[in-house]
Amino acid sequence: MTQDKVLCDIGFIGLGVMGKNLVLNLADNGFNIAAFDLCDEKVQGVIEQDRLENTTASPRVYGCSSYTELLSQLKAPHLIVLSVPAGAPVDQVCENLIGAGIQPDDIVIDTGNSLWVDTVARENKYKSNFLLFSSAVSGGEVGARFGPSLMPSGSPYAWTRVKPIWEAISAKVDPQTGKPIERNQPGQVITEGEPCAAYIGPAGAGHYVKMVHNGIEYADMQIICEAFHILNAGLGLNATEIADIFEQWNNGLLDSYLMEISVEVLRHKSSDTGTTLVDLILDKAGQKGTGLWTAMSSLEVGCPAPTIAQAVYARSISSFKELRTQAATILVGPNPAELSAQEKQDYIEQLHDAIYCAKMCAYAQGFQLMKLAAKEHGWTLNFANIAKIWRAGCIIRATFLQSITQAYERNSDLDNLLLDDFFAKQLSERQLNWRKAVCGATMFGIPSGALSSALSYYDSIRSETLPANLLQGQRDFFGAHTFERVDKADGKKYHVQWSTTERKTVVIG
Amino acid sequence: MTQDKVLCDIGFIGLGVMGKNLVLNLADNGFNIAAFDLCDEKVQGVIEQDRLENTTASPRVYGCSSYTELLSQLKAPHLIVLSVPAGAPVDQVCENLIGAGIQPDDIVIDTGNSLWVDTVARENKYKSNFLLFSSAVSGGEVGARFGPSLMPSGSPYAWTRVKPIWEAISAKVDPQTGKPIERNQPGQVITEGEPCAAYIGPAGAGHYVKMVHNGIEYADMQIICEAFHILNAGLGLNATEIADIFEQWNNGLLDSYLMEISVEVLRHKSSDTGTTLVDLILDKAGQKGTGLWTAMSSLEVGCPAPTIAQAVYARSISSFKELRTQAATILVGPNPAELSAQEKQDYIEQLHDAIYCAKMCAYAQGFQLMKLAAKEHGWTLNFANIAKIWRAGCIIRATFLQSITQAYERNSDLDNLLLDDFFAKQLSERQLNWRKAVCGATMFGIPSGALSSALSYYDSIRSETLPANLLQGQRDFFGAHTFERVDKADGKKYHVQWSTTERKTVVIG
Repeated sequence: MTQDKVLCDIGFIGLGVMGKNLVLNLADNGFNIAAFDLCDEKVQGVIEQDRLENTTASPRVYGCSSYTELLSQLKAPHLIVLSVPAGAPVDQVCENLIGAGIQPDDIVIDTGNSLWVDTVARENKYKSNFLLFSSAVSGGEVGARFGPSLMPSGSPYAWTRVKPIWEAISAKVDPQTGKPIERNQPGQVITEGEPCAAYIGPAGAGHYVKMVHNGIEYADMQIICEAFHILNAGLGLNATEIADIFEQWNNGLLDSYLMEISVEVLRHKSSDTGTTLVDLILDKAGQKGTGLWTAMSSLEVGCPAPTIAQAVYARSISSFKELRTQAATILVGPNPAELSAQEKQDYIEQLHDAIYCAKMCAYAQGFQLMKLAAKEHGWTLNFANIAKIWRAGCIIRATFLQSITQAYERNSDLDNLLLDDFFAKQLSERQLNWRKAVCGATMFGIPSGALSSALSYYDSIRSETLPANLLQGQRDFFGAHTFERVDKADGKKYHVQWSTTERKTVVIG
Repeated sequence: MTQDKVLCDIGFIGLGVMGKNLVLNLADNGFNIAAFDLCDEKVQGVIEQDRLENTTASPRVYGCSSYTELLSQLKAPHLIVLSVPAGAPVDQVCENLIGAGIQPDDIVIDTGNSLWVDTVARENKYKSNFLLFSSAVSGGEVGARFGPSLMPSGSPYAWTRVKPIWEAISAKVDPQTGKPIERNQPGQVITEGEPCAAYIGPAGAGHYVKMVHNGIEYADMQIICEAFHILNAGLGLNATEIADIFEQWNNGLLDSYLMEISVEVLRHKSSDTGTTLVDLILDKAGQKGTGLWTAMSSLEVGCPAPTIAQAVYARSISSFKELRTQAATILVGPNPAELSAQEKQDYIEQLHDAIYCAKMCAYAQGFQLMKLAAKEHGWTLNFANIAKIWRAGCIIRATFLQSITQAYERNSDLDNLLLDDFFAKQLSERQLNWRKAVCGATMFGIPSGALSSALSYYDSIRSETLPANLLQGQRDFFGAHTFERVDKADGKKYHVQWSTTERKTVVIG
C-alpha cells in the first residue's frame, strides 16, 4: 500500500464542505494530507475528489480510519488541522488525539468559528499535551478551496511552522492595486502577490478579529440592502434597474465583493418561473451569531458600534413577518414621493455617497472595537496587517480596504479611522449628500437604520459638546451619581441638591 | 431594656442610603425593624434618624450587632430584607444567616440590583435553608424613603407574607388619573390608591423586568437629551429657553418625571458662578450597566431594541471626549441653519411629536423584549400590571404609562405596543412631524440616534416587505445558507448556484 510508505505533511480532521475544500487547496499547494472524519463516506469523498482533480503522478490525500492511524501517517513533529463545529466537538477531538498519543511538540490548528474565550481556555488546558493554535478562516466554501483570508493566532513558535503553509493556501493580493489575484481552477497555484494570512496575536485574538470581520460584514450587507429598499420601494425601480445602478457603483468607489454578488443576485432569474428570483425570496433573514457577538462585545467594552447593532436588529425585525404584515395595515406612513427624472437621478447620486460614508463609519466602528478590545485583553494588534489580509479571500473584500491599510500605515495608533486625513476628507466632501439621502429615505417612509445610525455616529464623533451634560444632571438629580465640571478641570465629583430651596454644590471626592 | 421585650416584624440588613430610607419608610408604615449593618455607625445613624422622625410613643427601629442578635429580635417565621451590593455580598449575608440559625420557613428578600440569573441560582441554592425571595426597587433614594416601585418575584407563598408590607411602603397611584399620590414628609402614610407593587413571577423575573425598566429609562433620557441638543445647538436656544419649552411639554402629552427633573436641571444656577449649571457639567455620561444588559439581552433573545441600544452607545460616545474634540476640528458638518421665528416655532412642534413617537417606540421595544424573554424563560408576565406599577415611584413614571396599562388591559397578549389602536393612532397622526423633526436634526448636523432609530424601527415594523430577501440571496450566494420562497409557501429551504451558467434551483430540505 502506498499509504504505508509516504509520511504526510499535514493531518486533517473534519471533512465537511469547508474541510474538504481546505484539503484540496492544501493539496494543490503541494502538501500531502492524511485525512480523517468520523464519517467514512466523507473520507472517501475527498479521496475521490482528489483523484478527479489531481494532475500529479502520486496521490495527494490519504484516508485514515482512526486517530491513531492519522498520527502514524504524519511526519514528526505532527501538524494537524481541525475543521469541526465550534464548541464541544473541538474538545472531543482534542481528547481523542491525546488518547492516540499526540506529543507536546505537536500542533493542532482549530479553524472553526470558536468563541475567542473558549480558544484561550483550550490553549491553556492542553498545553502539556500539545500546542493548540487557532486560525479563523473567512471566505466561505469558495474561499476555502481557492484562497481564504486567514487570521492565525496563538503561540509564535507554532506560527513559524504554520506560516509557510498558511501563506501558500491563502488568497493573494496585487500589492500595487490592492486587488485580489484571481484563482478559480483546481490545480492552479498563485505564488506571487501578498498573502492574506498574517499572525494576529496571542490565543483568542484571531477568533476575535474574525468575529469583528463578521460584524462589519453584517453592517456592509445591511447598508446595501437599505439602498436596494430605498431604490425599490422609494423610487419605484425594479431589481434589474437596481442591478444596473449597483453594477455602475461596483466599478467605482463602492467596488466590493458584496456589491458584486448583489448585482448577480438581483439579475438572477428563477429557473422555474423565469422571473427575478429576489422578488420570490422570503424576507426573513437568518443569522449564525457572529454579528450578534460583535454587537454584544461592543456594548461590553464600551465601544460605540451602532451601525453594526442596527444591522443585527434589522435581521431580527425581518424575522417578525406576521407582526409586520399586521402592522402594515394599521400604521400610517407618508404619501408616496413623486420625483421627476432629474430628482431621481440626483437622489441616486446622493445615495451613492450615503453608502460610501456609512460604510466608512461601519469600518471605523469595527476597527475601534478591535483597538479597545486589544487594550482590554493585552493584545498588540497590527491594524494595517488586518486590513491587508481582508483585501482578498474574505466576504468584505473591497478595494476600500487598501485605503484602510494606508491609514494605519500612516498612523498605527490611530484611535478612530475617521481621524485619518483620507477618510476625514472623503466624509467631509460627501456629508451633505449623505444627509440628503437619509432625509429622502425618512420622507419616503423607508427604514434606513444603518445609513442613519452611521450619520448620527459621524455627527456625534464630530461634536465637541454632546448633551451628556444634561444626562449627568438628570443622573445626579435622581441617583446622586455626581458629575464633573468643565470650568474646574479638577477631576472632582460634584453633587447638587437640585430640587430644594437650599441649593449648594458639594464636592464629593 | 426595651429591646429585649419587643419582637420586631422585619429584620433589615444593609443600611446604606437605600437601606436606611427603606427602613424609615417601613417604620412610617407601622412596622418594627431590627436593623443590622457590618458598620456600627450606620446602625447608629438609622436609629438616630428614626429618633428625629418618630412621632409615636415607642422606638420603631432596634439596632443589632450580630446576625444572631438580629434573628433573636424577630417574630417567627422570620422576614429579613437585604439591601446590600449585588454579587458576592448577597451570598456572604446568606451564609452568615445560615450560620446564625435561619430556618427553612424564614424569608430573605434581596432588594439589590442582582443579575436575574444569579437570583435564580440563589433561590435554588438556599432552598433547604430558607426561602430566598427577590424584589427590585426603583425610584432612587427618594423613592425608597417615600414610596418606590417594587418588582417582587419568587415563591408565591413567600409573596403572601411579603405582600401587605410591600403594598404599604410602595408608591400609590390615583386609579382615575393614573397619577402618583404625593407623599414627601416623614411620618406621612398613604393608604388610598393603587400600590406600585405587584407580583411579577418566578425567581429572576422581577430583576429582569427591573433591568428592562432601566433600559427604557436610558432611551427616555437620551430622547430628551437629543431634543435639548437640537434646540440648543441647532436652533440656538439657551438652557433657560429650553426649560420653558420642556415645562410646557411637561404639562401635556410628555408629562413625566424625567421631563420634570430636566426642567429643574436646566433652570438650576450654580451657587458659585451664578450661571446655568448644566453649561458647566462635563459631557461625559456614566453608566452602571443595566441599560447595557438590556441591550445585550435584546440581542440574545432576538428582539429589536435599537433605540435602547442607541442610548447606551450615546453614553459610550460621550466618554470619548478627547477623540471628539480632535474630530470636531477636521470633520465637516453642514452650514448653520437660518430659520425664521415661524420656522423655529414649527420645528419645535415637530420635535414635540418626535419625542412622543420615539418614546412610544422605546417602550414598545422594552415590552416586546419582556414578552420574548418571558417566553424563553417560561414566565407568565402580566404587562398591564407591570405598566401599572411603573406609573409612580420609579424613574420612568409618566401619565403615559396609563395608556400602556390600558393597551394591555384591552389585549393581554399584545405582540407589540404599536399594534394597539391607541398607539397606532397616536403614531399615525404624528409620523409626518416626526419625520420632519428627524430631517431637521439631520440637516442641522445634530446627532439624533435615538429619535431616528425609533423612526426606522417604526418604518420597519410597518413594512410588510423588507430587503431581507436580497440579504438572504447574498447569504446563499457566499455561504449556501439557503432561503425560503414566498411563491411556494412550502417551508422548504432553497439553494441556487448563483454565479455559474447552469443556474438550477435546488431544494435542500
